[in-house]
Amino acid sequence: MWFTCEKDVLQEAINIVQKAASNKTTFPILEGILITVEKDRVILSATDLDLGIETYVNADIHQVGSVVLNSKILGEFIRKLPNDVITVKKENNDVYITCLKSEFVLVGNNPEEFPKLPVINENTMYEISQDLLRNFIKQTIFAVATDETRPILTGVLFEVRNEVLSFVALDGYRLALKSYEIGNKDNISAVIPGKTLIEISKILEPINEPVKITFTPNHILFNLGDTKIISRLLDGEFINYRQIIPDEYRMKVKVKTNELMESIERASLLAREGKTNLIKFEIKEDKMVITSNSQMGKVYEEVNIELEGEGLKIAFNSKYFLDVLRIIDSEEIYLEFSSNVSPCLVKKVDSKDYIYLVLPVRLVDTV
Amino acid sequence: MWFTCEKDVLQEAINIVQKAASNKTTFPILEGILITVEKDRVILSATDLDLGIETYVNADIHQVGSVVLNSKILGEFIRKLPNDVITVKKENNDVYITCLKSEFVLVGNNPEEFPKLPVINENTMYEISQDLLRNFIKQTIFAVATDETRPILTGVLFEVRNEVLSFVALDGYRLALKSYEIGNKDNISAVIPGKTLIEISKILEPINEPVKITFTPNHILFNLGDTKIISRLLDGEFINYRQIIPDEYRMKVKVKTNELMESIERASLLAREGKTNLIKFEIKEDKMVITSNSQMGKVYEEVNIELEGEGLKIAFNSKYFLDVLRIIDSEEIYLEFSSNVSPCLVKKVDSKDYIYLVLPVRLVDTV
Repeated sequence: MWFTCEKDVLQEAINIVQKAASNKTTFPILEGILITVEKDRVILSATDLDLGIETYVNADIHQVGSVVLNSKILGEFIRKLPNDVITVKKENNDVYITCLKSEFVLVGNNPEEFPKLPVINENTMYEISQDLLRNFIKQTIFAVATDETRPILTGVLFEVRNEVLSFVALDGYRLALKSYEIGNKDNISAVIPGKTLIEISKILEPINEPVKITFTPNHILFNLGDTKIISRLLDGEFINYRQIIPDEYRMKVKVKTNELMESIERASLLAREGKTNLIKFEIKEDKMVITSNSQMGKVYEEVNIELEGEGLKIAFNSKYFLDVLRIIDSEEIYLEFSSNVSPCLVKKVDSKDYIYLVLPVRLVDTV
Repeated sequence: MWFTCEKDVLQEAINIVQKAASNKTTFPILEGILITVEKDRVILSATDLDLGIETYVNADIHQVGSVVLNSKILGEFIRKLPNDVITVKKENNDVYITCLKSEFVLVGNNPEEFPKLPVINENTMYEISQDLLRNFIKQTIFAVATDETRPILTGVLFEVRNEVLSFVALDGYRLALKSYEIGNKDNISAVIPGKTLIEISKILEPINEPVKITFTPNHILFNLGDTKIISRLLDGEFINYRQIIPDEYRMKVKVKTNELMESIERASLLAREGKTNLIKFEIKEDKMVITSNSQMGKVYEEVNIELEGEGLKIAFNSKYFLDVLRIIDSEEIYLEFSSNVSPCLVKKVDSKDYIYLVLPVRLVDTV
């Protein structure tokens, strides 16, 4: 095994596949990166058995072969090298990495021991741009369940139905739904682990290049061109989310996203101290009053609104509101309410591509 | 108590005094900031009993008075307010902080319970620019002892002798000495807690404004104009550091600081894995070879040097070398050696204002 390439190129490839390498030490081989030098290409890959990533490196090939090297050590060393040509050469079990006057000899692990990534027949089923996929992940991932009591809820539902692609995440307190007309008639419903999507979103760039997506019964494959990402799907049925989202509302508030966010951020400082995260909304004709209190004091905030319908007093966990206000891509939003014990819907004023639902907190006394 | 001021101004003042507020909860009053409104000025102060900071706030004063408010909550709330005029007003025990449509009511603590900062008669003894004091701290603080077995070594010696100001820190493995002709004939020797210097260096700016320094037998006062910082001194005698620093050497190496640093950084990746941080230098005629190894592999690095005297093989803890290479302000440095069991001195090529001494690691076999 012997190749040369530019430092930047190798570093970039390591950064990408490293995201799938395991941090745990039960199986040291999973902390490694498999380097495979074929006649016409160099492939780097890593996997933690749930998620696998492989990417191609633009290199000059002198001799084919393969080896597994510790991902963390390799990555740190390459990053610290000067910007120049790097030579990677295996002799017996040792891998010599040289660059100008630096030489690094790393003991290689046996590539035979490295788990094979599942072979997937790439009959691309869906295509979506990197940028859009990034947004889909960003606007739903925060709503997945963080505890494992219902494992299916730690994933995001990937659903295509009536030519619309939807991502749905929910954790029992809130639900995030992002959708887009994909113009593809193959219906599907699969649940992608949240961890997979977090790692993928670090690799995706805000560009219009296509991501090709292929499903098998147990896996999903994202093909970004030079990089392929394969993830297990979660087992089980996702919750029938449609029946959770109400069609109707009794009142509707139009508000500036940033103003609401900044007010809730200030109110949540005290709510956080009180450990309940409780903030109260009092919706009046032309303004919404946001209050919170704890032993240390209280906060009173006013936000200008446009109201359709009657006023209302309602309480929320501030975190569930801040999460959505920080990622929603709309200067103004609608809040739809029915009563102070019914969910509130958050929607964009200028688009129907996003719905966020959050449950209120029931208070014993009148709010 | 009632005053108004610009948000920026109040935030800046809180940021400064906050550095002395305690994070521990044994005495909640020490987590607070004392706000004192006098006829013609507003003073913020905080202390953890070892370190005290007070600063003036440019404000419009409507009513004198004082109160203690939780430093963390106050700081976070002010930071999140829009850039506008803030009104701070105490009514009974509550403090009302208002800005545009935000109102924050914080329960105040009794200012009588707040510990008084020591009153120091400011007969300024020394003057040094903010920029220079910052450099003095940066170039010595990293060498203070981190364990408390010899408490005096957790501080930095402030010494004036023969009109030269020196800062000295040492921890038993290395010593950092920064000096400067201060042109003041009052000799002094006092040890300032490392923690104090770390907090002060966050407040100091790279500007030429003077810092006036006054000592009492137990305290040091730094006067930055609008801000005063008072710290306890450490009890006890500092080590006679002069007798540690050798006057002579048998060989001298001239090397580019950055090249040496980058090579040691790469070599230390494996040294770190081995948990010993051990790197070996082999000094030859025109180059220095740096090697390290662990179970995972080995690193070989070459650095160009100019050598006076004979070659040498010697080993070090890489951390002790990297610490100094990262802060020394000289493109080229000298390394002075006598033998592979004697300390190495690091000096600047263009100035005698800095000396760093580091002990080698004795190896059982020949290095």
